[in-house]
Amino acid sequence: MGHKRLMLLDNTHDQVRVPNVIALVGLPARGKTYISHKLCRYLNWIGIKTKAFNVGEYRRKACNLEEEGEFEFFSPKNTRGQKIREECARLAIEDMGRYLDNKEGEVAILDATNTTRERRQYLVDYCKNLQHDPAFRVFFVESVCDDQMIIDSNITEVKINSPDYKGIMTQEQAKEDFLKRIENYKLQYQPLDEEHDNDLSYIKVINAGKSFFVHNVHGHIQSRVVYFLMNIHLLPRSIYLTRHGESEYNRIGRLGGDSPLSENGLKYAHKLREYFEREDIDDLRIWSSQKIRAAQTASALRDLAAHVEYWKVLDEIDAGICEGLTYEDFEARYPKQFAERDKDKYHYRYPSGESYEDLVARLEPVIMELERQSDVLVVSHQAVLRCILAYFTNKNRDDLPYLKVPLHTVIKLTPKAYSCEVEMFKFDIDAVNTYREKPGAAKLPEEPTQDTRVVAI
Amino acid sequence: MGHKRLMLLDNTHDQVRVPNVIALVGLPARGKTYISHKLCRYLNWIGIKTKAFNVGEYRRKACNLEEEGEFEFFSPKNTRGQKIREECARLAIEDMGRYLDNKEGEVAILDATNTTRERRQYLVDYCKNLQHDPAFRVFFVESVCDDQMIIDSNITEVKINSPDYKGIMTQEQAKEDFLKRIENYKLQYQPLDEEHDNDLSYIKVINAGKSFFVHNVHGHIQSRVVYFLMNIHLLPRSIYLTRHGESEYNRIGRLGGDSPLSENGLKYAHKLREYFEREDIDDLRIWSSQKIRAAQTASALRDLAAHVEYWKVLDEIDAGICEGLTYEDFEARYPKQFAERDKDKYHYRYPSGESYEDLVARLEPVIMELERQSDVLVVSHQAVLRCILAYFTNKNRDDLPYLKVPLHTVIKLTPKAYSCEVEMFKFDIDAVNTYREKPGAAKLPEEPTQDTRVVAI
Repeated sequence: MGHKRLMLLDNTHDQVRVPNVIALVGLPARGKTYISHKLCRYLNWIGIKTKAFNVGEYRRKACNLEEEGEFEFFSPKNTRGQKIREECARLAIEDMGRYLDNKEGEVAILDATNTTRERRQYLVDYCKNLQHDPAFRVFFVESVCDDQMIIDSNITEVKINSPDYKGIMTQEQAKEDFLKRIENYKLQYQPLDEEHDNDLSYIKVINAGKSFFVHNVHGHIQSRVVYFLMNIHLLPRSIYLTRHGESEYNRIGRLGGDSPLSENGLKYAHKLREYFEREDIDDLRIWSSQKIRAAQTASALRDLAAHVEYWKVLDEIDAGICEGLTYEDFEARYPKQFAERDKDKYHYRYPSGESYEDLVARLEPVIMELERQSDVLVVSHQAVLRCILAYFTNKNRDDLPYLKVPLHTVIKLTPKAYSCEVEMFKFDIDAVNTYREKPGAAKLPEEPTQDTRVVAI
Repeated sequence: MGHKRLMLLDNTHDQVRVPNVIALVGLPARGKTYISHKLCRYLNWIGIKTKAFNVGEYRRKACNLEEEGEFEFFSPKNTRGQKIREECARLAIEDMGRYLDNKEGEVAILDATNTTRERRQYLVDYCKNLQHDPAFRVFFVESVCDDQMIIDSNITEVKINSPDYKGIMTQEQAKEDFLKRIENYKLQYQPLDEEHDNDLSYIKVINAGKSFFVHNVHGHIQSRVVYFLMNIHLLPRSIYLTRHGESEYNRIGRLGGDSPLSENGLKYAHKLREYFEREDIDDLRIWSSQKIRAAQTASALRDLAAHVEYWKVLDEIDAGICEGLTYEDFEARYPKQFAERDKDKYHYRYPSGESYEDLVARLEPVIMELERQSDVLVVSHQAVLRCILAYFTNKNRDDLPYLKVPLHTVIKLTPKAYSCEVEMFKFDIDAVNTYREKPGAAKLPEEPTQDTRVVAI
């Protein structure tokens, strides 16, 4: 029998896996793309393969706004504009349909304005068309916002840097043009409506999460989406990740266990405290695993924090029968297991222990809580922090188990609209290197990627 | 340092644990008491101590409806009625306040109609009064229903059997009186309103979960409550629990491990299949643990089910260093640990393993999924099923680790409005007894409790 993976993070509660379409609805600058990005990242991380289809990108490929007259292109009276936009929506929807029909993924996100009832009906009809077997389930996510502050900040942060404007006009001009574009959309906007749209399944996100209206939720995926949307927020904050200081077991190269900090590990805890004294965060929460090495590290910072908690779910991956072994012991005693792990590290489960996939499942509520919180420091372990880091930096399952999370380093994550800024603060305290390269693979680049900055301190 | 318990199931993300008041709002027969009961059970199970205060019970103690004129007592024109009802609300609110002030619990549920804005304001003012340190956070749960079918079934199922009517009038008379009582409430009802109540935190549950309006959710507890309310449903269904058939390890009295079924165990799997053939359930889902003995049992029923899944979260409690030992070995090798476990079985954690408390934490998503589903068979293990059974039958943490979940028995749970019907089907196939009495305690009664029926088959 096929032992499937841990299911809570999955839609396998449906008899047949029903493909789901999540369609955004709303005027420009209401955070639709922000929501698409976050949902896409979250669903992929929990193991539900998801892809976003952004109609704006189709439109940018199809025509040049500078030539089309910028905001005037979006006027309901501009028949050429209307036609091109309809065509782009159709192309995006068809690509999306092929993606789901070919079982390339389970969820498709249609990132478009979908502001008219007619357009939404077109999508619904398309999804229940008999050509799709099974038919697609559609869930609308409408972002409604009348808070001018939120709209302004969205325009300033994201829209004026859009490829529609970059290098074409000044930021002031861009903003002005964009506001006019919104006005053109408003002329045709029909919000989802309790009466008219009683048969649809949808959530209305009102003023960036102050209120929600939820209607006709069906199935596991829609239920997860609603829960996720109700927990994310837009307030600026940072998440700090660190492993415990170097432990006695680290020094002798043993896996797992529950050993205390080494002398260097204690030094790190001390320096970590100084670092957070400098950061001077008002309402810092510290979440530590329950392993001694992590708890020792976290407790050095106790009085700096509003709050310290010790969670078993943050404990290191359970290496089962390999707990306490070195990598050399592991390879010598269980050569087949060792080779299997190298072949597919993400799915490999230690006998009587866990896989990275199991870890992601147990960490899902941590991610949900991190989404809800302001500043948090997580003191945990290599494998656990790889999973958390992969979530925030949108890394796939092949790369996840090889992410670099060295000892004596603070990883500071600052979520931005469509990405996450990563800063790595490497402390000048000796520690063993616990990183094991992916065998046979080309070395990962030592250079930090676009969003990552490495600082020695 | 104090290692606190696994925190995701807890409100310890608040800097200081803020006491929460959850106040129901709605006309009679809108399922307020149903919601109170379910919420109370759920929050207690996940470790948040909660108590419900039902104003109707205060009113029943304060006066006799038969003497007061039944439904006329609830007329806005009945000044004596109004006064008594106000007084009862005040008493309930004050008892609730004492309960939270004395830190007897973290959440109080006020089960009352709270249909006027004035009454709700009184509650809000009371909760933020300086006498409470810290002030209480208030969350309103309004149940709105205009679906006459749901209202009728609620009146028929629950209300005509209320102590207000039992033995006093016929069911027909009771129903008629109750409908008039509702009319009296309607005269004063002011639903929560987006504009008027913008400062409040609340959820509106519309037509028993078809839609929801959620506003201003704050903190971990309110977020959990919202998620829970969005997943429960009222459709009739049963949940079947069974342990795997007897395993080889069961036969020799060893803990844990991953042994296959014994000969008797295989017989049980066969009989279990016959049982579900007779039950003839349309859309049965089977969830099994990933242990061999459970998967073997579940797979005998594969083709009867719409759906079989194997979940790691349903695996037996991890006995850590005691895996594979007999109870006698355990006592001989680790006498201190053994004694500690007997002292507080719920919180005792096997070294390198889990406690019942850890189990409840890992099973919380299973409970949430069970709440969402129709008919499900769970094939799992003694400790895991004790946790699930305790949730549905509302058992406390002292009793939970001693609940009887014998081998070769199907436990059929059928949730009712305010309780859960339990039927135990004991199959006539030999199995070892794996039950260990609570040492020193008076024997648990062998007789099934009120809601439990035992059937030999």
